[in-house]
Amino acid sequence: MPVLVMKFGGTSVATLDRIRRAAKRVGVEVAKGYDVIVIVSAMSGETNKLVGFVNETSPLYDAREYDAIVSSGENVTAGLMALTLQEMDVPARSWQGWQVPVRTTDAHSAARIEEIPTDNITAKFGEGMKVAVVAGFQGISPQGRITTLGRGGSDTTAVAFAAAFDAERCDIYTDVDGVYTTDPRVESKARKLDKISFEEMLELASLGAKVLQTRSVELAMRYKVKLRVLSSFEEQSDDAGTLVCDEEEIMESNVVAGVAFSRDEAKMTLVSVADRPGIAATIFTALSEGGVNVDMIVQNIAEEGRTDMTWSCPVDQVIRAEKAMEKAHEEGIINYQELIADKGVAKVSVVGIGMRSHTGVAAKMFKVLSDEGINIKVITTSEIKISVLIDRKYMELAVQALHDAFELDKAA
Amino acid sequence: MPVLVMKFGGTSVATLDRIRRAAKRVGVEVAKGYDVIVIVSAMSGETNKLVGFVNETSPLYDAREYDAIVSSGENVTAGLMALTLQEMDVPARSWQGWQVPVRTTDAHSAARIEEIPTDNITAKFGEGMKVAVVAGFQGISPQGRITTLGRGGSDTTAVAFAAAFDAERCDIYTDVDGVYTTDPRVESKARKLDKISFEEMLELASLGAKVLQTRSVELAMRYKVKLRVLSSFEEQSDDAGTLVCDEEEIMESNVVAGVAFSRDEAKMTLVSVADRPGIAATIFTALSEGGVNVDMIVQNIAEEGRTDMTWSCPVDQVIRAEKAMEKAHEEGIINYQELIADKGVAKVSVVGIGMRSHTGVAAKMFKVLSDEGINIKVITTSEIKISVLIDRKYMELAVQALHDAFELDKAA
Repeated sequence: MPVLVMKFGGTSVATLDRIRRAAKRVGVEVAKGYDVIVIVSAMSGETNKLVGFVNETSPLYDAREYDAIVSSGENVTAGLMALTLQEMDVPARSWQGWQVPVRTTDAHSAARIEEIPTDNITAKFGEGMKVAVVAGFQGISPQGRITTLGRGGSDTTAVAFAAAFDAERCDIYTDVDGVYTTDPRVESKARKLDKISFEEMLELASLGAKVLQTRSVELAMRYKVKLRVLSSFEEQSDDAGTLVCDEEEIMESNVVAGVAFSRDEAKMTLVSVADRPGIAATIFTALSEGGVNVDMIVQNIAEEGRTDMTWSCPVDQVIRAEKAMEKAHEEGIINYQELIADKGVAKVSVVGIGMRSHTGVAAKMFKVLSDEGINIKVITTSEIKISVLIDRKYMELAVQALHDAFELDKAA
Repeated sequence: MPVLVMKFGGTSVATLDRIRRAAKRVGVEVAKGYDVIVIVSAMSGETNKLVGFVNETSPLYDAREYDAIVSSGENVTAGLMALTLQEMDVPARSWQGWQVPVRTTDAHSAARIEEIPTDNITAKFGEGMKVAVVAGFQGISPQGRITTLGRGGSDTTAVAFAAAFDAERCDIYTDVDGVYTTDPRVESKARKLDKISFEEMLELASLGAKVLQTRSVELAMRYKVKLRVLSSFEEQSDDAGTLVCDEEEIMESNVVAGVAFSRDEAKMTLVSVADRPGIAATIFTALSEGGVNVDMIVQNIAEEGRTDMTWSCPVDQVIRAEKAMEKAHEEGIINYQELIADKGVAKVSVVGIGMRSHTGVAAKMFKVLSDEGINIKVITTSEIKISVLIDRKYMELAVQALHDAFELDKAA
């Protein structure tokens, strides 16, 4: 039997009624002859509740305990989905991550999937089971402890299962009906894309468009998993949603595919660091070990033998970054004068594979922002995207102005 | 280091504040030099919420999925307790049932613990860990699926760990300050017992006094685990609560130790069953396989070659019992005329090891009920208890009248 992977996010399984609705969609695919692997998130709100408990209990928590706690929400949904399918006479059972087992690294709260053995589930398909319901977002470390893959990790679970089982397609059911040129809540003229390339989706995901987790797109690109994003709240059809695919499959596209943003960023600057070979590696190793996800990095020469190092990270990791730098300072590993944190910034980016062949996109972006009186604090670029850090209060304005200027409301 | 087991029930860990309070008590025992194993229940209300989800999804649920779902609450508490202890600088980590592993039978939702390997946790104690926090109520089946031990199963987990680790004592922290002669909510004159024998506690527990799970007392008796029931809401002292111990350790006691009751019982009668050797075994095997916990059993001869079989079970298992009997009827295994269910009964019992040496307790009990105009529907007795089924509406009256008549408000 061909295998189909279907992933339902938190809002798609937020209530027992919604789980039933999702189960009906699974039933439709089973009736078509698929063996289905369903990946579920926690019921909407559950993970936030558990994360809240952890943060209130222990601000600098042991990530191993964090993972053991927050992974429980997915287990509940997996069991309920299996029961719902059984009630519809669809043979189904649930698997928790450690039961498959989904083997991951031991980087708790941000673990990477290393291996998904298929024998266990395949054997059950052979015995007549039609649906394997797997708790997303979680796995097991080499030490036998529960790991999680980071927020949105269920998308990665889904793509990894699709790759491991050589699935025909991986359908990601969510609360939006596809990938948009930007968030419609910020720009009402945002337009749904029928297709988007892996590369563009990757940049959009990593830049804060919360439709898909970045690593899930990376994985899909590497293993050529056909990925479809669609709404669990609309009628099902074969061409619903947005297909994430190779750029060769997209005939025409705009130079810029979308405008992404990330609201809760912080800009941190380590002032007057002793400049020596390897200092950047030392700083960013210390931050990484301290659990800080550094995004942009800029280095300025301050004076003879000293340098300023600037980076951005999620605003809720500023405390960790400060702790990590203080520790490195106390241990004499890093010598610096001051650590400044600007917690009031946001990141705005334009993304498009068309940039490879069209020049002037960056210049146009900077002019649009300048015309609106928005000051740019940091710039980074890649082959297909340009990102800037700006004051958070200008974020919506910047997104709208860029969406207009690049005419994203019009199809190519 | 001597090992102490401390178990905290749902109300003792209902909020993060209460978890902190419980953790402080653990800290006190660690300071005394104990290696502590903490067994936790789910935060109060969580298990009921999950059970509600299951029942709404699938009234005749797959017990394997039920177990996977409802066990998640304990995992959350275990992680939060470990984090709280870490915040107090007490080295601690959490274990889920399958991580220990707590090996059980595969009787899902009512599994029995078969083995608890101690090497894993003992090794961690050797490395300086002071507290192992274990999720109660759960284990793993030979098939590698999650099992649960039935409601109140965390008590059994606690006693089983105390036995496996040869603990000095097993302290059960709960929302009451000990074992009472009856439920103080029903009889305000109920009196706390300082000590109670294993045998009496066993009868009280199995008769519906919800302080301790029956199997936990059985286990404690078999392995001579010193068991103490005490309140997590009062100041700690060495003689707080009620000690459950061998009867030899109790100098004086009343003939009747307590009055127990169970409100939500059903009386079911299989009318005119073909009477043949082995028919009782056939009926109760079918009920057991249908997941019905039969309590009392009475058989009457109805007519030549036919018999009526009466039993009691929890009222929420009536549907299961009906299904099991219909199935057996359709399969031609059991031939009967009718199955009558009386869902409006309660069980009231008097318990005391003094009954062994004192006669007339049963006669006195029946007279007390008769004087109050309460009709007795079924009677069963053991060496140290007498139980009756009566109309549910008379339950409180019966308990109060019996408590008075046997003068349980006065110490021996």
